[in-house]
Amino acid sequence: MNRRMIFYTLGKMLMIEGLLMLLPCLIGMIYHEKESLAYLMIAILLCFIGKLMSLHKPQNKIIYAKEGFVVVAAAWIFLSIFGAIPFCLTGEIPSYVDAFFEIVSGFTTTGSSILTDVEALSHASLFWRSFSHWIGGMGILVFVVAFLPDANGSTLHILKAEMPGPIVGKLVSKITVSSQILYQLYTVLTILEVILLMLGGMPFFDSLLNSFGTAGTGGFAIKNASIAYYNSAYCDGIITFFMILFGINFNLIYFVAIKKFKAAFKSEELRWYLIIIFASAIAISFNILPLYHSIFEAFRYAIFQVGSIITTTGYVTADYGQWPLFSQTILVLLMFVGACAGSTGGGMKVSRIIIGVKSAIAEMKHMLHPHSVVSVVFEGKHLALSTLNNIHVYWVLYFLLFGLSLLFVSLQNIDFTSAFSAVATCFNNVGPGLGVVGPTGNFSSLTDLSKIVLSLDMLAGRLEIFPLLMFFSRSLWKK
Amino acid sequence: MNRRMIFYTLGKMLMIEGLLMLLPCLIGMIYHEKESLAYLMIAILLCFIGKLMSLHKPQNKIIYAKEGFVVVAAAWIFLSIFGAIPFCLTGEIPSYVDAFFEIVSGFTTTGSSILTDVEALSHASLFWRSFSHWIGGMGILVFVVAFLPDANGSTLHILKAEMPGPIVGKLVSKITVSSQILYQLYTVLTILEVILLMLGGMPFFDSLLNSFGTAGTGGFAIKNASIAYYNSAYCDGIITFFMILFGINFNLIYFVAIKKFKAAFKSEELRWYLIIIFASAIAISFNILPLYHSIFEAFRYAIFQVGSIITTTGYVTADYGQWPLFSQTILVLLMFVGACAGSTGGGMKVSRIIIGVKSAIAEMKHMLHPHSVVSVVFEGKHLALSTLNNIHVYWVLYFLLFGLSLLFVSLQNIDFTSAFSAVATCFNNVGPGLGVVGPTGNFSSLTDLSKIVLSLDMLAGRLEIFPLLMFFSRSLWKK
Repeated sequence: MNRRMIFYTLGKMLMIEGLLMLLPCLIGMIYHEKESLAYLMIAILLCFIGKLMSLHKPQNKIIYAKEGFVVVAAAWIFLSIFGAIPFCLTGEIPSYVDAFFEIVSGFTTTGSSILTDVEALSHASLFWRSFSHWIGGMGILVFVVAFLPDANGSTLHILKAEMPGPIVGKLVSKITVSSQILYQLYTVLTILEVILLMLGGMPFFDSLLNSFGTAGTGGFAIKNASIAYYNSAYCDGIITFFMILFGINFNLIYFVAIKKFKAAFKSEELRWYLIIIFASAIAISFNILPLYHSIFEAFRYAIFQVGSIITTTGYVTADYGQWPLFSQTILVLLMFVGACAGSTGGGMKVSRIIIGVKSAIAEMKHMLHPHSVVSVVFEGKHLALSTLNNIHVYWVLYFLLFGLSLLFVSLQNIDFTSAFSAVATCFNNVGPGLGVVGPTGNFSSLTDLSKIVLSLDMLAGRLEIFPLLMFFSRSLWKK
Repeated sequence: MNRRMIFYTLGKMLMIEGLLMLLPCLIGMIYHEKESLAYLMIAILLCFIGKLMSLHKPQNKIIYAKEGFVVVAAAWIFLSIFGAIPFCLTGEIPSYVDAFFEIVSGFTTTGSSILTDVEALSHASLFWRSFSHWIGGMGILVFVVAFLPDANGSTLHILKAEMPGPIVGKLVSKITVSSQILYQLYTVLTILEVILLMLGGMPFFDSLLNSFGTAGTGGFAIKNASIAYYNSAYCDGIITFFMILFGINFNLIYFVAIKKFKAAFKSEELRWYLIIIFASAIAISFNILPLYHSIFEAFRYAIFQVGSIITTTGYVTADYGQWPLFSQTILVLLMFVGACAGSTGGGMKVSRIIIGVKSAIAEMKHMLHPHSVVSVVFEGKHLALSTLNNIHVYWVLYFLLFGLSLLFVSLQNIDFTSAFSAVATCFNNVGPGLGVVGPTGNFSSLTDLSKIVLSLDMLAGRLEIFPLLMFFSRSLWKK
């Protein structure tokens, strides 16, 4: 294992976290808040530690699969450990476990919160919370790879481990350039959303933070009533559109940007993603019709919530805890489906569901005709057996870890629906669940043990299980 | 497809169902019940139809995998369709959908009931209900294969499709003899339980029916309070022992019977099965301790419920709906684990869980060392890739069907916990769930749609998904 290179990369990452923390410090200064001092202190500390760690550039810069998993898991853990400190220093979140939960929820773009009154936070902390979504959405190490001059081809393994989805497609041959394009697209689309929201009368600060939450498919609200606070059909519409957009594979968005429309629209995953969204929204609209004045009003709330949940953003415009069970069940199932691979969204990803269904059909054909050779075709390509096996094992691990987490969370004597949906919403990086952790509730009443388990679930969900599990496995660390 | 042979085998099966129905008729006559007439009528009808269908012995008696799946799926569907009729004819269950649900629950050894007062049933119907567990436990077609003189080697495919578990082991080289040994063991153990229960003071009729429910891991109670009615630590102990015994692979029990103890006790699946049972029982005992007088009393109820749920029997001696969430969650997770392969129990089976975990570890090793060849060893044997793939796809299909069923059941506006546990308990052939369908509730308040969906879930669970899905697939039926 190339420990020096891991150490070096982690140092760079911490330095960048320090630099990024200057932004909330600046925001705090603009609003004359004393909280900005806490951010300044940690920013300086991080830059110092990071600089120390990356002083000596290692000779051997090669990163293999093994190092890729370690560096990604370690980066996300340290990112969160340090990112949580300002919340405690400012006194806004006194308990460190709470602060850790909150920032993990931020970086993993989950959006579950332990805050009972988010409007009481300083602007600096509100900014840091929402900005963590934006950083975590595209990935902190993708950022490191994109903007460090000494990144080279071997960093592909970092991208592989950090980017969501079973198959990673490169945009262009050079990784550094690929990562830069991704971040440029991401930035342009975010700015576009900010402008469109401001045109709807939303203040600049709110537009910016809500756009961070949308772009990262995070969902931290800066108002207690979430997006419902603005009570504007226009803003709902804009946010719905962008949530669904940020749930699409960025490679496809890039194809559209360079006018390769055909390549973009023949994507099987995109087609099913949109079919699932519209079918779910229509089904829910009819189901909740009695609660609203017209089918249009019902559809407005339904499509927003469906877009918010399937992309695992987690913004809320209606208390879906009051909707009939059928609508709630659709939303819970969508949490598991998740967004497209290669987007900022979480969940199992539409592609893994499609490949799962196709594998099942292929296996049944094989059972009927044992001598036939059966293969699975996805996006026009035959999938290799090793890819299929990896996806199947992901399913197995997913449900094993789900059961195990549920067991730990149920040590706290709440109701089954709340415990189940808490794990579902955290593991899939969604945000709100049902019951105590529903759209009008929050995670503050959970025990520290539950919060820690759910924090690990959020990390496991964001990194798609493997890196985090490997990080804690003996086999990785032994010679 | 050898349609003639399918037709012929189904005929034989219906004839045997007719003959078996003479037993409840006889019981009814002993107790001077007019209900016995209904059983006589259907028995005659079934023998007549069955005889007609099996008049012409087909020349080509070969059954391939394809025919095996069809005949098993069709057999179980027709078995249930006809088996439900007497309940309607006697007027004891007026709705046919209810009667169908009840008998499917019987044959699939689920034990979920739509009856609100089971003690009001005639002895004939009580017998038929519990006897259906006994028939379904070992499999109706295994019975056909065992006791029909013209069964030959090609019937292996029937056994494969009807026996639970990912890998089917033959006891001896000849299938017919294998099936006979299985049924002999099954009968001897059932009689043993009847005798032991009678020694505890339980009446003969009750002992017999409760033993049917234990042997088939079914769990239909003949008292409204289930086994709690007898309020006897001795009977609880005997039933606990036999439930756990009938959840063990019959091949292992056979090895013990022929004194090959070593072969029996080196089984990995058995070891984990027992570890899971005792670990769960101990954890629950401490969790429910405040509700009981002593740790022994707590353990008595905990081990009974754990044995009942993991073997998917579903008998109840305590209202676990009142236990803390942690205990309830353990029980819900055990529903999914299920018993051992090759037993009469349902669920995913301990072996599929072990192989799932091992596959995950193997895949992670492979990801760290991409050039290494990794394999999974289970019960001392390397598993073939095709076996592994089949087990993984089973996991995928399992959770896809689970989600789909939950969606249908949630069309009825009950609470999430009830809907979720209803699907869990039916799909895994357990019996009671949580909430409305909890240990003190029943399935009577569900809509007809929910009952039909749950009936299909019970069949899919008992036949381990594939045969039933294939039966309804186009690919099977087209030329």
